[in-house]
Amino acid sequence: MNTEYNIPMKINPIGVVHSALTHADGAPIQPVFAKDSEGVIDIYEPYREGLKDLEGFERIWLLYWFHKARTPRLIVKPFLDNTQRGLFATRAPARPNPIGLSSVRLLSVEEGSIQVAELDILDGTPLLDIKPYVSKFDYYEVKRNGWIDSVQDKQGIADKRFCGQDKIGD
Amino acid sequence: MNTEYNIPMKINPIGVVHSALTHADGAPIQPVFAKDSEGVIDIYEPYREGLKDLEGFERIWLLYWFHKARTPRLIVKPFLDNTQRGLFATRAPARPNPIGLSSVRLLSVEEGSIQVAELDILDGTPLLDIKPYVSKFDYYEVKRNGWIDSVQDKQGIADKRFCGQDKIGD
Repeated sequence: MNTEYNIPMKINPIGVVHSALTHADGAPIQPVFAKDSEGVIDIYEPYREGLKDLEGFERIWLLYWFHKARTPRLIVKPFLDNTQRGLFATRAPARPNPIGLSSVRLLSVEEGSIQVAELDILDGTPLLDIKPYVSKFDYYEVKRNGWIDSVQDKQGIADKRFCGQDKIGD
Repeated sequence: MNTEYNIPMKINPIGVVHSALTHADGAPIQPVFAKDSEGVIDIYEPYREGLKDLEGFERIWLLYWFHKARTPRLIVKPFLDNTQRGLFATRAPARPNPIGLSSVRLLSVEEGSIQVAELDILDGTPLLDIKPYVSKFDYYEVKRNGWIDSVQDKQGIADKRFCGQDKIGD
């Protein structure tokens, strides 16, 4: 129960991500760097009815809990850069509310099982929400992408920098 | 504490949205329908350091808690349609984890105050996260937008259908 609001701000996973990515170290940092990576999202039984009509969409947003992320820091060196950046100007996983956002390509929906491609999410990640990717709502031709515009094209592969080392003790 | 994971899945707002939209009834349902709507995001003091470098981005993603949403239903009539749709194939606010996602236009960042335009979020909404909108990560030319492709262009204005009527008792 959050004291500022009269409703509990409680998260309950609606499903789980199954992917070939078992460690952050070496995983693609965004779907655009994960062209060959397919996986399955299992939706828990009580939520499956809500998947109706989803298959008509080419891409979907997955919102998920970065369950392997370490305690957040407000200034970080992002994967794509060697300069210290403000956390909210990055997509780093270790955040005050560690919610991840990925637009993945939808292959099929069968029963409670969603096949996707371009998946950049670690195996076992708790899923919080699915939203359709809608051109009219999500597709903006922006001219300025901040510090990312000045970064040379890299492979977009993660290392251990945001892993929960302080939790597992190494 | 969620029993399935060894970390608590706990949400703590990092700030609050101030907008002219005080009621869902009549509010724009997405930023694309909110061209004239400006507002201010106040970031709480402990998180302000993380705003460094944000100003270089033209748009930002806001993730927030739909604090006025009613208990979710898995089959809904979305604002843009009169047909029953699966919840996860819509952007309706009443969801199992009621997390909202909007790409708004960034005007300025001063101290802990972020001026934005194209804001479709209700006044007083708890903010959970800010991420930069990055063309390379978020801009996908999709051909299929499911049921939304077959909907006539509407004004994109909300009514009361997802408000917390069951909570406030009317």
